[in-house]
Amino acid sequence: MHLPGFSDVLAAATRLQGLAVRTPLLWNPALDEAVGGRVRVKAECLQRTGSFKFRGAYNAIALMPLADRVRGVVAFSSGNHAQGIAEAARLFGIRATIVMPADAPAIKADGVRARGGRVVTYDRASEDRELISRGLCEETGATLIPSFDHFGVIAGQGTCGLEIGQQLAERAETADQLVCCVGGGGLIAGINLALAESAPGIAVYGAEPEGFDDHARSLASGRREHNTRTSGSTQDALLSDAPGKMTFPINQPRLKGIGVVSDEEALAAIAFAWRHLKIVLEPGGACALAAILSGRISAKDKTTVVVATGGNVDAALFARAIGG
Amino acid sequence: MHLPGFSDVLAAATRLQGLAVRTPLLWNPALDEAVGGRVRVKAECLQRTGSFKFRGAYNAIALMPLADRVRGVVAFSSGNHAQGIAEAARLFGIRATIVMPADAPAIKADGVRARGGRVVTYDRASEDRELISRGLCEETGATLIPSFDHFGVIAGQGTCGLEIGQQLAERAETADQLVCCVGGGGLIAGINLALAESAPGIAVYGAEPEGFDDHARSLASGRREHNTRTSGSTQDALLSDAPGKMTFPINQPRLKGIGVVSDEEALAAIAFAWRHLKIVLEPGGACALAAILSGRISAKDKTTVVVATGGNVDAALFARAIGG
Repeated sequence: MHLPGFSDVLAAATRLQGLAVRTPLLWNPALDEAVGGRVRVKAECLQRTGSFKFRGAYNAIALMPLADRVRGVVAFSSGNHAQGIAEAARLFGIRATIVMPADAPAIKADGVRARGGRVVTYDRASEDRELISRGLCEETGATLIPSFDHFGVIAGQGTCGLEIGQQLAERAETADQLVCCVGGGGLIAGINLALAESAPGIAVYGAEPEGFDDHARSLASGRREHNTRTSGSTQDALLSDAPGKMTFPINQPRLKGIGVVSDEEALAAIAFAWRHLKIVLEPGGACALAAILSGRISAKDKTTVVVATGGNVDAALFARAIGG
Repeated sequence: MHLPGFSDVLAAATRLQGLAVRTPLLWNPALDEAVGGRVRVKAECLQRTGSFKFRGAYNAIALMPLADRVRGVVAFSSGNHAQGIAEAARLFGIRATIVMPADAPAIKADGVRARGGRVVTYDRASEDRELISRGLCEETGATLIPSFDHFGVIAGQGTCGLEIGQQLAERAETADQLVCCVGGGGLIAGINLALAESAPGIAVYGAEPEGFDDHARSLASGRREHNTRTSGSTQDALLSDAPGKMTFPINQPRLKGIGVVSDEEALAAIAFAWRHLKIVLEPGGACALAAILSGRISAKDKTTVVVATGGNVDAALFARAIGG
């Protein structure tokens, strides 16, 4: 298995220059006071398409041989990888077909369609999205781009970590720890690759939803453990079945621990971000912030980088979270 | 009348270093596509207290003689200057009393109280907030800090413009125009002072609410025109009676024009910012963005800096704006 390394992250950064947003590393005293420490929020919700996923999606398509690329791409995703792929495919002028669960947030399916992507829906409980996706690839010659277990995707997500290292250095700051949500572990794998070289010494923690704590259990057992459910959390972006075959070997030796976050804590973090930070987060995107606000991972007397990974949430759920 | 100049803005920037947030200048391709030009959003909603007002409030208190400062400060404000003053007073360890209209957004009054400020409410239609404020000052020896017509306040707000100039330069970018909302004109006066020296050549436009177009009429007539109403717009941050005695002489020769924005357009801009930019704006804070999204000020084929001034909005109104 050929895993990406630091040089692949650097190469991805060059490809993404001027296309991905260099998202800000935010500071807000209200958050510092809430946790009793110094916090920097890497606001990937401000990324093109409203989540970090554009980074990996674009890099993956850029790495495809031209002969394959012109036949288009297929992805399955609850919506953020979907929008990232659709946006990247639009920039390359190729077709994207996205297999999405029927219960995915409408804002995410709309975001795919608005970018010219084709949406094929399936039922989470009774249908196999991988089978549907492979069928679509066979029909059209398109290439499947997985949402996390993919060389180019991991390297692309790593550019987020690269920026964090640069942004800390620009301010002459260091961080004690970083907290990032984990679904399949693609983003945190990329961040691990980037920080190991550019800002070693930062302890990296994951955060994942209650009931979908496959990473916590996998780190404990030392092998890739699966979730028993496929749905049932509002943190829809983080419901992958298990740590990836590529991401786990990268993450296993590097992750210091996992904070497990309830949906209520994620919604409370959305409300905090709305009221104090003035950024829009979706439940999964608020998971890492929730981990420190709830104290599942202590940020007291430390400097913590929190990755706020996405902000694509339906209006009704957002209104409920903020008490509107 | 002693008006602030560029050096006063520079001095304010030194005072605010490490206390005010250096808010990011955001880029999002979705906004560029929506207006057919290049847009950079100066996200002052991400400022300490959720609006730019902390800059001027802190600078004004810092400029007070110590003997006066210890007796506390009084302000009247619909809520953003109020929170700015309360937060700055908290940092200086002095008392702040804020005179707020009874119909001010609850989130703003709560924000004052959470920062240790005392809130005194009045009825917009029947009571004179200036009279109440002066009474409070006489009782306690506190000093009134006006929300815009004040040397230190204008200089402090100017630090926002200084950062815009620096942030454009850091990216080797120039801008054709800047759009910023106007209430009393304090922020745009400070920005004018800063840009005239640091980034001349940027055409500065104001944006104000329909029915409260005192700046548009004042620029047309050449003298300070008053609004006929005191309430009746959801853009509560922008309902000042008239351009300031200090701000108008600064702004009159520099403003290229005004875009007048309806409440519907401001709410639509809140929804756009929520859906695409993932930042939280209040109606007044979305006014400048609304001016370019609605085409009241054309951003087509230009590079436009839009100042998003604040994000303190009650949950119910926000939910209505985003369709939740």
